Amino acid sequence: MSPLVANLQFELQAKLDGKTKPLGALGRIEELALQVGLIQRTLSPKIERPQVLVFAGDHGAAIEGISAFPQEVTAQMVANFLAGGAAINVFARTFGLGLAVVDVGVAIPLQPHPNLRVSKVVFGTQNYVRQAAMHRDVCSAAMQAGRDAVARHVARGTNLFVLGEMGIGNTASAALLMHRLTDIALEHCVGRGTGLDDEGLIHKQHVLARASARVPQALDVLETLAEFGGTEIAALVGAILEASARGCVLLIDGFIVSVAALISMKIDEEACQSMVFSHLSEEQGHIRLLEHIGAKPLLQLGLRLGEGSGAALAYPLVQAAVAMLNEMASFASAGVTNKGG
Amino acid sequence: MSPLVANLQFELQAKLDGKTKPLGALGRIEELALQVGLIQRTLSPKIERPQVLVFAGDHGAAIEGISAFPQEVTAQMVANFLAGGAAINVFARTFGLGLAVVDVGVAIPLQPHPNLRVSKVVFGTQNYVRQAAMHRDVCSAAMQAGRDAVARHVARGTNLFVLGEMGIGNTASAALLMHRLTDIALEHCVGRGTGLDDEGLIHKQHVLARASARVPQALDVLETLAEFGGTEIAALVGAILEASARGCVLLIDGFIVSVAALISMKIDEEACQSMVFSHLSEEQGHIRLLEHIGAKPLLQLGLRLGEGSGAALAYPLVQAAVAMLNEMASFASAGVTNKGG
Repeated sequence: MSPLVANLQFELQAKLDGKTKPLGALGRIEELALQVGLIQRTLSPKIERPQVLVFAGDHGAAIEGISAFPQEVTAQMVANFLAGGAAINVFARTFGLGLAVVDVGVAIPLQPHPNLRVSKVVFGTQNYVRQAAMHRDVCSAAMQAGRDAVARHVARGTNLFVLGEMGIGNTASAALLMHRLTDIALEHCVGRGTGLDDEGLIHKQHVLARASARVPQALDVLETLAEFGGTEIAALVGAILEASARGCVLLIDGFIVSVAALISMKIDEEACQSMVFSHLSEEQGHIRLLEHIGAKPLLQLGLRLGEGSGAALAYPLVQAAVAMLNEMASFASAGVTNKGG
Repeated sequence: MSPLVANLQFELQAKLDGKTKPLGALGRIEELALQVGLIQRTLSPKIERPQVLVFAGDHGAAIEGISAFPQEVTAQMVANFLAGGAAINVFARTFGLGLAVVDVGVAIPLQPHPNLRVSKVVFGTQNYVRQAAMHRDVCSAAMQAGRDAVARHVARGTNLFVLGEMGIGNTASAALLMHRLTDIALEHCVGRGTGLDDEGLIHKQHVLARASARVPQALDVLETLAEFGGTEIAALVGAILEASARGCVLLIDGFIVSVAALISMKIDEEACQSMVFSHLSEEQGHIRLLEHIGAKPLLQLGLRLGEGSGAALAYPLVQAAVAMLNEMASFASAGVTNKGG
């Protein structure tokens, strides 16, 4: 830690400790306030134009029957996002968050819409059971689309992003990426996704074991992402790296966005400082992944939806933390006797 | 459960299950939506004029050195609430909640203020180490003050309350009440409150053991409340009973409000249906108390502040749940293929 950052951390802690409450009595809210102050490099952070970005892409491996829902649902749910009817829309409206969808790889062409950014790099990935999901150039282009989406919103003043995804089959891809990048056994990485039954779960594990066995050699992080990833996951990685480099706060959603976070940290370990892990999802691999990362999620609500919905639900806690740091009175200013005083 | 309620529950569940998400994928948020629908007896609940009520009172036993802060802090913190500088003020402003303080037993006279209701029934309780904390009539009057506060806000349209408290020494009183009403060993009920050290904690346990030993005979719930309670705890009990009877949603805060919830359930077991247990606090007795009640807290953020601060932090989740139930599209309306479709 640089002396400047260490000094800021000291001053932020002193500011928190002077607030009219027992020392540390706001627990995780105080930690959040400290983190946001450090991200923004200020004692008085502000949240500006908070924005949900939902990256959407299809997975060739969906044909293997690894999801409870058919592939067509990706495009249908994007239409639902644009019509304002999905959970993430409702939560974004409730909490005053902007929302944009970025199509990086949906399998069919989508109708133009003011809230849709078409940055399609491919019409769905290839089936990673048989070949690489993406060519390296396609993967790079998807990452760049994520970077560009963030850059556009930062140019308009956004300094906090809620990141989400839509892509039928993407818990499978995320599980495979997690397995290959952490060496955690595949069966601990694979879960029920949108609701597979026992038989479906076993089938999903077999499909993913075959995919992994197809490429026995070690791969670096970008090779792994291209081999087994999805365009929306690659775009999330780009978005995280760009937002982190620009000093934005990142609300990380559930399992899939957390895998993108893992990949981002492997590319740039500084990126983790910008990340708020919003919730522990029900998807089986998530708890092990967060332990691996060393992340403490804010919420545990039994969610397993994706879309950025869990990250959006954690946003008010960030709002509260920032407001607390800025607005709460100190013992001195309020004339309250401090402990032992 | 009456047939009408059972039918409403069935219809609410069907409405939730038709939303564009995997079955149950919004976890606790779906449970919350169901609960609020049942409380309001409707498929389309609404939150109206949500209101924080902070009840304040002093404890005679504070003289025994059972808190890290001196008794004068109760009145100082009420002044802080009225000036808008406390954590609960910040959270209430952030989330659009009204806030009123009700003085039911602060040890000194307080200056009038538009957000202060003076319903003082006593200038602080007696020291329960030596005598009953309250005469039964004083306790009843405090409960009635709680009922009246709720009734006033319901008359103005409020249908959701965030309940909080302020009273130096009140984790001690709450621990004693919990011990006597649940038969859970005193050492499991007593915690560090606002920040006692090890020595302070042991002293607090000894003081409370002496207080309990002074009244060896079994007491009924109202006798227990008067013997060992505080005016603010009695007011909370009245507020909970009144709000529950009027079909309001109640956000229960941390340890002290949860003890008031326990007492309310012992008086009227229906009351628990209106309660949302907002968070698990750091105060030692809280986890055992919630287990005893059978309550699953929404948040676990390491809070130990009181004031209603944890309940206020959970409010956006209730907002989100209600909005989800009302606004989210169904598979049919959005043209999304349902599972297996």
